Amino acid sequence: MIVIIKQDSTWDELHPLLRYCQENGIEVQETYGFHLRMLNLVGDTPKLDLDRILAFDAVENVHRLLSPYTLAGRGAHPEDSVVRIGSAAVGGGSFLLIAGPGSVETEEQILETARAVKQAGATMLRGGAYKPRYSPYAFQGLQQEGIRLLVQAGREVGLPVITEIMETAQLPLFADVDVIQVGTRNMQNYELLKELAHCKKPVLLKRGLSSRVEELLLSAEYLMADGNADIILCERGIRTFETVLNYTLDISAVPVVKELSHLPIIVDPCHGAGRRKLVPPLALAATAAGADGLILDVHCDPQNALSDGHRALTPADFQALCAKVSAVRGCL
Amino acid sequence: MIVIIKQDSTWDELHPLLRYCQENGIEVQETYGFHLRMLNLVGDTPKLDLDRILAFDAVENVHRLLSPYTLAGRGAHPEDSVVRIGSAAVGGGSFLLIAGPGSVETEEQILETARAVKQAGATMLRGGAYKPRYSPYAFQGLQQEGIRLLVQAGREVGLPVITEIMETAQLPLFADVDVIQVGTRNMQNYELLKELAHCKKPVLLKRGLSSRVEELLLSAEYLMADGNADIILCERGIRTFETVLNYTLDISAVPVVKELSHLPIIVDPCHGAGRRKLVPPLALAATAAGADGLILDVHCDPQNALSDGHRALTPADFQALCAKVSAVRGCL
Amino acid sequence: MIVIIKQDSTWDELHPLLRYCQENGIEVQETYGFHLRMLNLVGDTPKLDLDRILAFDAVENVHRLLSPYTLAGRGAHPEDSVVRIGSAAVGGGSFLLIAGPGSVETEEQILETARAVKQAGATMLRGGAYKPRYSPYAFQGLQQEGIRLLVQAGREVGLPVITEIMETAQLPLFADVDVIQVGTRNMQNYELLKELAHCKKPVLLKRGLSSRVEELLLSAEYLMADGNADIILCERGIRTFETVLNYTLDISAVPVVKELSHLPIIVDPCHGAGRRKLVPPLALAATAAGADGLILDVHCDPQNALSDGHRALTPADFQALCAKVSAVRGCL
Amino acid sequence: MIVIIKQDSTWDELHPLLRYCQENGIEVQETYGFHLRMLNLVGDTPKLDLDRILAFDAVENVHRLLSPYTLAGRGAHPEDSVVRIGSAAVGGGSFLLIAGPGSVETEEQILETARAVKQAGATMLRGGAYKPRYSPYAFQGLQQEGIRLLVQAGREVGLPVITEIMETAQLPLFADVDVIQVGTRNMQNYELLKELAHCKKPVLLKRGLSSRVEELLLSAEYLMADGNADIILCERGIRTFETVLNYTLDISAVPVVKELSHLPIIVDPCHGAGRRKLVPPLALAATAAGADGLILDVHCDPQNALSDGHRALTPADFQALCAKVSAVRGCL
Repeated sequence: MIVIIKQDSTWDELHPLLRYCQENGIEVQETYGFHLRMLNLVGDTPKLDLDRILAFDAVENVHRLLSPYTLAGRGAHPEDSVVRIGSAAVGGGSFLLIAGPGSVETEEQILETARAVKQAGATMLRGGAYKPRYSPYAFQGLQQEGIRLLVQAGREVGLPVITEIMETAQLPLFADVDVIQVGTRNMQNYELLKELAHCKKPVLLKRGLSSRVEELLLSAEYLMADGNADIILCERGIRTFETVLNYTLDISAVPVVKELSHLPIIVDPCHGAGRRKLVPPLALAATAAGADGLILDVHCDPQNALSDGHRALTPADFQALCAKVSAVRGCL
Repeated sequence: MIVIIKQDSTWDELHPLLRYCQENGIEVQETYGFHLRMLNLVGDTPKLDLDRILAFDAVENVHRLLSPYTLAGRGAHPEDSVVRIGSAAVGGGSFLLIAGPGSVETEEQILETARAVKQAGATMLRGGAYKPRYSPYAFQGLQQEGIRLLVQAGREVGLPVITEIMETAQLPLFADVDVIQVGTRNMQNYELLKELAHCKKPVLLKRGLSSRVEELLLSAEYLMADGNADIILCERGIRTFETVLNYTLDISAVPVVKELSHLPIIVDPCHGAGRRKLVPPLALAATAAGADGLILDVHCDPQNALSDGHRALTPADFQALCAKVSAVRGCL
Repeated sequence: MIVIIKQDSTWDELHPLLRYCQENGIEVQETYGFHLRMLNLVGDTPKLDLDRILAFDAVENVHRLLSPYTLAGRGAHPEDSVVRIGSAAVGGGSFLLIAGPGSVETEEQILETARAVKQAGATMLRGGAYKPRYSPYAFQGLQQEGIRLLVQAGREVGLPVITEIMETAQLPLFADVDVIQVGTRNMQNYELLKELAHCKKPVLLKRGLSSRVEELLLSAEYLMADGNADIILCERGIRTFETVLNYTLDISAVPVVKELSHLPIIVDPCHGAGRRKLVPPLALAATAAGADGLILDVHCDPQNALSDGHRALTPADFQALCAKVSAVRGCL
Repeated sequence: MIVIIKQDSTWDELHPLLRYCQENGIEVQETYGFHLRMLNLVGDTPKLDLDRILAFDAVENVHRLLSPYTLAGRGAHPEDSVVRIGSAAVGGGSFLLIAGPGSVETEEQILETARAVKQAGATMLRGGAYKPRYSPYAFQGLQQEGIRLLVQAGREVGLPVITEIMETAQLPLFADVDVIQVGTRNMQNYELLKELAHCKKPVLLKRGLSSRVEELLLSAEYLMADGNADIILCERGIRTFETVLNYTLDISAVPVVKELSHLPIIVDPCHGAGRRKLVPPLALAATAAGADGLILDVHCDPQNALSDGHRALTPADFQALCAKVSAVRGCL
């Protein structure tokens, strides 16, 4: 870590910084530049709080040289991590194909969809039970009953299941769920992350709407720091100035994450696409970019879906897409 | 609401949409354009789920004409709302000046700061007890004990207090807190919003990092729809491409919110400034733009603050700023 | 076009708007909403200036229903446009593979690269002669001599050539160039667009760093309105809050443009990748998303390139990538 | 400049980088970190091309420690620069108040406006002659005749004048113009910047829609590197995800520029406001933030303005605003 020191700062002003470094077991080297006074901090700098360094009067600026995530980073763990969920796996060459409706609506609906996606090639079943909705006037999900129906359908067809948790208090309801999804608005819900770190289940961590890749990896670090290493990252589109779609799918996050981290990363093309018709090209792009899997909205009757129907594939669409995804994977 | 119909859609394809409108008590008028087939939907359209309309096969596009927030909007409530908190008030000409440390650290620290900011002109005391931190390795706050010390200091000096809640389960701990703060990462934590709608306390709702003003008002709508009308909005900087500061303070949100809504809006210039030195110009800009108040980091010893010291004002800085804020308010 | 009228506006206030519509041959229909007064403007509304409508005192808001680009839009021209450049073609199933160095440096360098990319499968040769550089201290290109060497190399190996123009005054120097490239910073250089509209050469129009897809199509409209229909659009990455790469490649722009417009769209993955290693996954993603071509930096000695070496492929990299691109195209 | 070296790079791989440094007169110091191999490059590093360093195989990453603008930076020139234009001045305490219509329309219109803004307190007259318009179907300005009428009106009332240049070829037409405006879309039109560097007139340089403050200062550096030091910077709103207004006025750019640079910075609140009603609060915010001036749209008949009427103040609005601006300046 390079700390730029103000040109006119005195030894007295520098002293509190040096003491702070000493207390944290950090070695301080003086070095110099053409027009710069600077210090090189050596040691376990990823755990230093940047803002504390910046608070010292003598400090002009700070440059981090090491990434602040050490467990999630590729440096300490060069080979790909593989997360196994029953019959399914993701990472290190294993591709995860998650499909199902935006919302669990009825027993028949989720079972019919489960059968259809299983047949078409899905390796995991999804279905929303708690739905984060912009408007208080929109359908909010079947909640506890939704989880029960999802788990039942998954067992019936032989697929592990995933659904989204909204807050810590719901955790006991997720006992039979195979993978817990942390949604985009909860990526930095640190209370939730700390709790999930202690549960013995894989976590699908969706990137926040306006989170940098580094912040996604820092949220994974929260989970890993307390003992949960079964993490699947998910790119789902970020917020940009472009308005033709609701979100901009950041396809480059896939190869970037693969360079920086050993964790598997899958892609949700549906939020970014916003419309059924745009889902297949984005799903294929994600596959070609090297994603470790996809998570897709599939609904047997999109026009009457209680949520997300506009971007849901029909089972037939899904089947056609699966064949192309498989073909593209063969080319890489 | 204007619904653009696909040129080649048949009556059969149109039928499900018409039935949906009928079921929701919406009147449908046919209208036409130069190259367009379109329907004008009349009725309580703000409560319609846009995505459901978009899911119908016959629909090309939808244009909302009425804002989706009706309780938070200025239309139904033309005069400014005023929120009263003990001796303090905000909105309709009353200015709220919240000050205190980023984190409650010790009994002495919070009491000393409380005295200093009260003397300088603050009308409410703040102090973080639960801290959302990017890194799992940073100071996470005194938690329950922090709330106790904050409340005690507020009572001692005669200031109402505000602190941030992280999740629903913490709500019982906030019994003695005067205003509950919903942080930027929780603006769309809908479980939390629904719970706070039922508590009898004013809520400070911070704009999300990447939330549009319309979404901020929709989150306020969540609180109001279930009965809590004491809402104070807060602009604190949004995420943009600019990197010289961590966030870009969106000063125009102040007059925009005042046009669209009757709710008071205050500004937190500290996150946007990122550094002590930039806080005063941004605080004055917010005041000149017509904000109903400010929330500021003040610490008696910023160099040794356990969090946020880099952007904290000293009590002397704060006192000097208060005088200027007051003078600028006199010019408007 | 729907114009929302202020609730309290009088007939006198409405009059200037009605007269403006009449003068522009626009029919005005009164229509109504639940809480709204509104007018439906019917006629050649894409050519109306939205800001002029907004300037009328009686107007609250305006909603455009028709896109403002009529020539570039798919509506008036349902089938794909194909642009032919000598032996190469792009659009309607034809794939354009442009390759070459960021800068033309020497006669040997450009000729050697031309031979290598031709052999590997490129259908067009690129090479920068005028270079837009952030810093006044960086290499600015060989300029006129660069164009001469590029054209000569293209003829030698039998490939059409493309290079970037910086301003109108340079146009005479481009007489022997086959396709003129308008760079990202010039996408809204309207003087240049008007001039290029009259030249008889295909134009490659790169999307602006912060331009919406609609604005890209409006810039194409500038060229088409004055008679040049040979336009190739290019997505090259947009500016977002993400900093791990310089730009975020907006892969969804490919299927979106294909839906809204009949013009071909190619992708430049190199600026978005920023580094050699990330170019192949992004190039394959673009291909899988349905792009009509790619434009790639290829340099025989990237470490000693005078510009863009960090993101240039070697001829061997390029050849390996071409094989994969071809395989992925076969899966779509 | 800190260069992080790949862990496994050999001496042979390092050699080309070391030679490059030597050729550019840069001293290379070996230094080290906990898990890092790194080099400290000392010398005139602001002029090094970052991308060239990144192109070397041995290089993992580069951290710039010195800003790449040396002439525009505050470091080499600690006191504020003052730009003088006839009777007007800007910077170092002098406030510049530029007002006039978006477009020069007729001799009467510009003269009437000139008289009105002069009387209200403007210190410079503006008026668009060449207009950059999104749509080819919108009014494009009176062009050469517009400049003539503007200059004539300025002389008549005794105000220096400013108008926007679109490209290098127009420069001879600007002989009688006092300040040349470079618009937001031309901030990185480097051919234009190089030409303006040699003309003996002050330049108003507007920040690009998606340009970082550092890039604005680099464009100023272009002008200064070739000899023009009379530069006025202008913040006018940036492109973000927020859509309630067209642009987000980045008010923090004002104090940030004042910290990083000695150049004066003024604010254009009209583009960011988008509507007349929002201009005054944003103008006052800019003033309170410490701006050195304002540039405002003023039109005697906004409803019939040929451009920009929706955001133009009337002379009466302008006069009222001037009084408040003056009062706010007195509080700082």
